[in-house]
Amino acid sequence: MKRTISILGSTGSIGKQALEVVEALPGKFEIFALAAGKNTELLKEQIEKFRPKVVSVSAEGLADELRSQVGQVEVLWGSEGLKEIAGNRQNDMVLMAVTGLNGLEPTICAIENGVDVALANKETLISAGNIVIRLAKENNVNIIPVDSEHSAVYQCLRARKEATVKKVILTASGGPFRTKTFEVMQNASVKTTLAHPRWSMGDKITIDSATLMNKGLEVIEAHWLFNVDYSDIEVIIHPQSIIHGAVEFADGSVIAQMGLPSMHIPIQFALTYPETFEGIKTNSLDFTQILGLDFEKPDLKKFPALELAYEAGKKGGTYPAALNAINEEAVYAFLAGNIKLTDIAKIVSKGLEVHKNTENPSYKDILEADKTSRIFVKNYFVINSNC
Amino acid sequence: MKRTISILGSTGSIGKQALEVVEALPGKFEIFALAAGKNTELLKEQIEKFRPKVVSVSAEGLADELRSQVGQVEVLWGSEGLKEIAGNRQNDMVLMAVTGLNGLEPTICAIENGVDVALANKETLISAGNIVIRLAKENNVNIIPVDSEHSAVYQCLRARKEATVKKVILTASGGPFRTKTFEVMQNASVKTTLAHPRWSMGDKITIDSATLMNKGLEVIEAHWLFNVDYSDIEVIIHPQSIIHGAVEFADGSVIAQMGLPSMHIPIQFALTYPETFEGIKTNSLDFTQILGLDFEKPDLKKFPALELAYEAGKKGGTYPAALNAINEEAVYAFLAGNIKLTDIAKIVSKGLEVHKNTENPSYKDILEADKTSRIFVKNYFVINSNC
Repeated sequence: MKRTISILGSTGSIGKQALEVVEALPGKFEIFALAAGKNTELLKEQIEKFRPKVVSVSAEGLADELRSQVGQVEVLWGSEGLKEIAGNRQNDMVLMAVTGLNGLEPTICAIENGVDVALANKETLISAGNIVIRLAKENNVNIIPVDSEHSAVYQCLRARKEATVKKVILTASGGPFRTKTFEVMQNASVKTTLAHPRWSMGDKITIDSATLMNKGLEVIEAHWLFNVDYSDIEVIIHPQSIIHGAVEFADGSVIAQMGLPSMHIPIQFALTYPETFEGIKTNSLDFTQILGLDFEKPDLKKFPALELAYEAGKKGGTYPAALNAINEEAVYAFLAGNIKLTDIAKIVSKGLEVHKNTENPSYKDILEADKTSRIFVKNYFVINSNC
Repeated sequence: MKRTISILGSTGSIGKQALEVVEALPGKFEIFALAAGKNTELLKEQIEKFRPKVVSVSAEGLADELRSQVGQVEVLWGSEGLKEIAGNRQNDMVLMAVTGLNGLEPTICAIENGVDVALANKETLISAGNIVIRLAKENNVNIIPVDSEHSAVYQCLRARKEATVKKVILTASGGPFRTKTFEVMQNASVKTTLAHPRWSMGDKITIDSATLMNKGLEVIEAHWLFNVDYSDIEVIIHPQSIIHGAVEFADGSVIAQMGLPSMHIPIQFALTYPETFEGIKTNSLDFTQILGLDFEKPDLKKFPALELAYEAGKKGGTYPAALNAINEEAVYAFLAGNIKLTDIAKIVSKGLEVHKNTENPSYKDILEADKTSRIFVKNYFVINSNC
């Protein structure tokens, strides 16, 4: 049976790889809708190839232009476009691959309409995990993570559906500063920091990977996705990135998911869940080609961002939303050359200190926390440049 | 709900550890029967503690003696005793932990009476996999492996019930001669060979582990247990024995089972399947304490036994039964100081060359192949000592 899917963020890295998965599995999927940002050239190619019924772009002008160029496709735009697509009950599943808090409202629309979500957007669970997970339960909707580490844990958990989980293990490559001193990290250029040893990713996430904030944010996502206490989520530095995640069950047995670094596997896993197909030919993991797998405890002194994320997660309320917003603004400041890499965690720490928490936040509370946190960072720079 | 179980081989290593699991899970099990060999002293203690309804020992004399010493326990003996216990429908599950072909008939009795089997006896599947697996299917009976590697694979397979398996991976520590030359192995004393680096096991299996015949026999078991072609079963040398087994699925995702070497986990997994309990407190696998995991291709020149097992498995029929019997006799000859360690594989190779195969063997054919193979080895020694 064909599965009807929509991809929000179809011209981004995850979206493009998802369409490669769709191509590699002819007859398995029908594309209901594709949503892009500004890259209408690529979107036009995707329309040609995948024949969606609906598309959406970021702005009205782009939509008008596109409408005049394509045939029988409905063209929507903006956040309303994303929501209309995600909430359409023709979808069996929506791949949420837009970045930032833009992903939250469409995700909620999908869930409220009983549409399963393949979730590649981090902010949704970090900022609004309480809302999203409650709604998913109420609407009996699957949220299947696309992120490599969470997909790994999700796959491992399937091995023992009813079993108590003793520990969830998320691995981290450790980033470019794993073997460097704090001083080297402090003085790192943007260029050095963007040279990630294992995965090719966007700039924001590569910086987060260098500070380990990325792993901290994943810890918060794991808490919501897998309903585990923060004390039962362990981050392990594993430079080779072969084991992507693992679960220790009550009986002491550890189930791990392994593979060569490839986003095709987690994307395909989510899109085809609960079935498994050969699909895209990924290189098999050849154990005899592995030169050794290493594991280390993360150095929290060098990477305080990880601990800040655990703390924000444990405090709950709007703290994770604040953490995410402050970090994002600080990362942009680093990328713009305005602060040092190690300042990011300092700013996050200061921002969380002054954050006014709201317990059990509503959607509005979360947006408000996001906004005030970003204002905090901007004011912080104004104050610091005035001093 | 209590699960009624019987343990065949209750005074052996696996049997004793199984009773430790039973003790660690109060209220979960009722022991219907225990069967031992000659160790009636330990069996009496087990009767006292676990209150079985029936017990069995190896010989009539031992049974008479025991009967006079214990109260309301029915005392059986010999192979009839084992069969009567295994086939009793009061059992939900029988743990088959007797050694050698003695395990085969009771296993068949259990299966024919709809009793699930936790299988710790290797010979059953190696010699008579075709019969046992067919009967298990016909009677809708679970056969759950207790062996650490097969338990690992069984656990991994549960993660994707419907998925195509691309590869089953069995790990091997590599034994004491992994880093040694063939010459060192050739001249190894029995004592050196019995010093296994990772697992504490009986003498026969420790020798098999040194020649890698143990892994070869496991390959044959895996073929039957998991219904995979020999070409899709890979043996990987992994000296640290942390990853016990893994499965690569059609989509390229690899699921592995890991843990500190402990037989309690696979025993408990089998006895409680499909549930998971905390049970015996095993030490958690602490990734940060792992000093590195290594993987190598097995050296088939140094360890020809592994290839002989693959060949016997692929040929099928009575070849695996012959392989097992020839190897066993050769191992005993090595343990008795009569041959060199490296002669074991030579004798197995010669024995398989002259073996007269029977396709789709019956139980009788298998016993016959076992017998003639053992006679071959004895004659081989007579001929060689005469030369």
